[in-house]
Amino acid sequence: MSEQMNAKFAEIRDQFPILKQEENGQPLVYLDNGATSQKPESVIQAIENYYRFQNANVHRGVYGLSERATELYEGAREKVRDFLNAKSTREIVFVRGVTEAVNLVAQSWARTFLKAGDEVLITEMEHHSNIVPWQLLRDQIGIRLRVLPINNKGEVCLGAMADMVSENTKLVSVTHMSNALGTINDIQKMSEIAHSVGAKFMVDGAQATAHLAVDVQKTNCDFYALSGHKMYGPTGIGVLYAKEELLEAMPPYQGGGDMIYSVTFDSTEFNVLPYKFEAGTPNIAGGIGLGAAVDFLQSVGLNEVAAYEDELLKYATKQLKQVDGLRIIGEAEHKGGVVSFVIDGVHPHDMATLMDQDGIAVRASHHCAMPVMQHFKVPATIRASFGVYNNFDDIDRLVASIEEAKEMLL
Amino acid sequence: MSEQMNAKFAEIRDQFPILKQEENGQPLVYLDNGATSQKPESVIQAIENYYRFQNANVHRGVYGLSERATELYEGAREKVRDFLNAKSTREIVFVRGVTEAVNLVAQSWARTFLKAGDEVLITEMEHHSNIVPWQLLRDQIGIRLRVLPINNKGEVCLGAMADMVSENTKLVSVTHMSNALGTINDIQKMSEIAHSVGAKFMVDGAQATAHLAVDVQKTNCDFYALSGHKMYGPTGIGVLYAKEELLEAMPPYQGGGDMIYSVTFDSTEFNVLPYKFEAGTPNIAGGIGLGAAVDFLQSVGLNEVAAYEDELLKYATKQLKQVDGLRIIGEAEHKGGVVSFVIDGVHPHDMATLMDQDGIAVRASHHCAMPVMQHFKVPATIRASFGVYNNFDDIDRLVASIEEAKEMLL
Repeated sequence: MSEQMNAKFAEIRDQFPILKQEENGQPLVYLDNGATSQKPESVIQAIENYYRFQNANVHRGVYGLSERATELYEGAREKVRDFLNAKSTREIVFVRGVTEAVNLVAQSWARTFLKAGDEVLITEMEHHSNIVPWQLLRDQIGIRLRVLPINNKGEVCLGAMADMVSENTKLVSVTHMSNALGTINDIQKMSEIAHSVGAKFMVDGAQATAHLAVDVQKTNCDFYALSGHKMYGPTGIGVLYAKEELLEAMPPYQGGGDMIYSVTFDSTEFNVLPYKFEAGTPNIAGGIGLGAAVDFLQSVGLNEVAAYEDELLKYATKQLKQVDGLRIIGEAEHKGGVVSFVIDGVHPHDMATLMDQDGIAVRASHHCAMPVMQHFKVPATIRASFGVYNNFDDIDRLVASIEEAKEMLL
Repeated sequence: MSEQMNAKFAEIRDQFPILKQEENGQPLVYLDNGATSQKPESVIQAIENYYRFQNANVHRGVYGLSERATELYEGAREKVRDFLNAKSTREIVFVRGVTEAVNLVAQSWARTFLKAGDEVLITEMEHHSNIVPWQLLRDQIGIRLRVLPINNKGEVCLGAMADMVSENTKLVSVTHMSNALGTINDIQKMSEIAHSVGAKFMVDGAQATAHLAVDVQKTNCDFYALSGHKMYGPTGIGVLYAKEELLEAMPPYQGGGDMIYSVTFDSTEFNVLPYKFEAGTPNIAGGIGLGAAVDFLQSVGLNEVAAYEDELLKYATKQLKQVDGLRIIGEAEHKGGVVSFVIDGVHPHDMATLMDQDGIAVRASHHCAMPVMQHFKVPATIRASFGVYNNFDDIDRLVASIEEAKEMLL
């Protein structure tokens, strides 16, 4: 890696106040970015400034403070539109996060337009957020939930996918990047296969948007979901992108203020897009904070982020493979900055607990992807997942801590 | 009012940074608390501290940072439990706000346990958030939505309510305090009437919790909903209180991570309460900020808040009545700090726009309560709604600004 790139990312790391603190007397090494990312100064400031100087309810006030809050909130929507390269802000619906986005699509679009026997195809590497909503829908209307298997590297086979889809397939919903394995799916080709049988194509971008450039038009996504808190933004805010004609045809998800144009007790006329899907006072500070996170990511540049994190991934993989008894779970050709592993004779939770004593935050868990654990016949893995502020020193400390913990546990 | 009380509330006002700024060259007079409240320093700090020093995902991490974030988030749940006097934190479900809470009850409880012809009783003074979810459910399963009328003072008649309920009534859902009129409903008596026919009783507390003490056990509420941002807390967070036996019987609302205990593709075992209803990463910062808002309100004391705001209401009512051509909409015996009014020959929006020039933030709107507007045969009202930081000077400036604006508009 170039000196220049290292210097650039050292400067970026400096923008994250939490990384300046110690954990158990050691500088914090935060490697749980798959669960949530830390926040740069600019995001924290955007939220703070909103509450200190700009707070008002949006869309309905005629006074200056409310108009400025509305401009900030709607300005964030435009930033997200640009970030995803959506055609219009009418296609950008603010939600709590990916989980709510998938539930919205299941309950509004699928519950309306699908019938018993229709198929929804997911993959074996999905997070529970892209499994359970379809199971609930299956219990409600009798859809068939089909699962595209993964191989032992943690990849899906596009040929198998082409064999599984048919005119019964109404939706293909896949993760852009696996939280448990790091696998990056080829959503461009998957979109083509889904559309070849007339199915809609949805992408769970929870793990991807902090690491990869997304272009919903180029990929021809019908739905794309993201979570703000995993891309350096606040908790409680996310986005469902959906094509305008789909949103137009879908019934509202939740009813209430802001999503209606007029109400009598007999009938109600719904508001225009995207407001039809945003009932009640939204997470205004969350939306504004997400806008600041998009600014942050775009100022770094998604291609540079991807290149930098790929270097971290390669180095971490090489170093971890030298640890005796360590087995990496998930070795896809195309991977993002996630290394999941198990160590012979060591329970992941015990290992992670000891690593915390060295100031190292990793996750030991099923990662809300139990079917992946079942596939690899492990109860849990230890996962180190990278962000823009991680560096080679973090990885050296990770590996040293594993070696030390092994000494104690074995 | 005592000097002591005035001094106490002047000190409280001092805790709100936004009130120190000018709007159009005048100190801001913020009288749109019905739409959203401003935030005290302690709430802003709680959010900022979380992101600066404590940010991690909750419930699943074995490292110290995540454990501390979980303690803070679950600590906030306990604060809310105490605030509402719920029996158990298992009864405190974090949601986005009242709108989501009502939709959750409609889609999970009512859609499961009600059938065509069953009646849901609301009042004519409800906010759209307590109307539209029931209309959506009516379209889905054919419940009957019945409406308890209001009189010309803006009150419901408990005798009429007793006549309207029957064994067909399965749910009575009413606002604790009307956002458009200020009316405080006698939820104690309404709860008794609802339960006398075996109906469940739900309260929309969006407007109430910043102004009145709530005791869900004493009132025997089955469901009680609140929004954080209207009670000095952050946007994007609120609470559904529900009795434990109801939550146990209800199916989940959204599916995803954190709300399950185990997942295979065939079946899924749900998590214990309240997590069964909290799918996906929650609004962690929002929950912690709401906890700080509860601390703030309890440090002031809800009874003192109610007494102080009642003085403001009485003074404002008296002063506004002296304005020629001004008619107050909503003159219930039992009212909170909301004055809605119209002025002969003046459109509310024009008036509010001119008042903004004087630094005065009021709302000119249907207040998401169109049926109330239809009842009083007005398209909109101007609404001044009070919070703990308002004072008599604010009301004098409100009245002076109205008089000035009248000069220009008439």
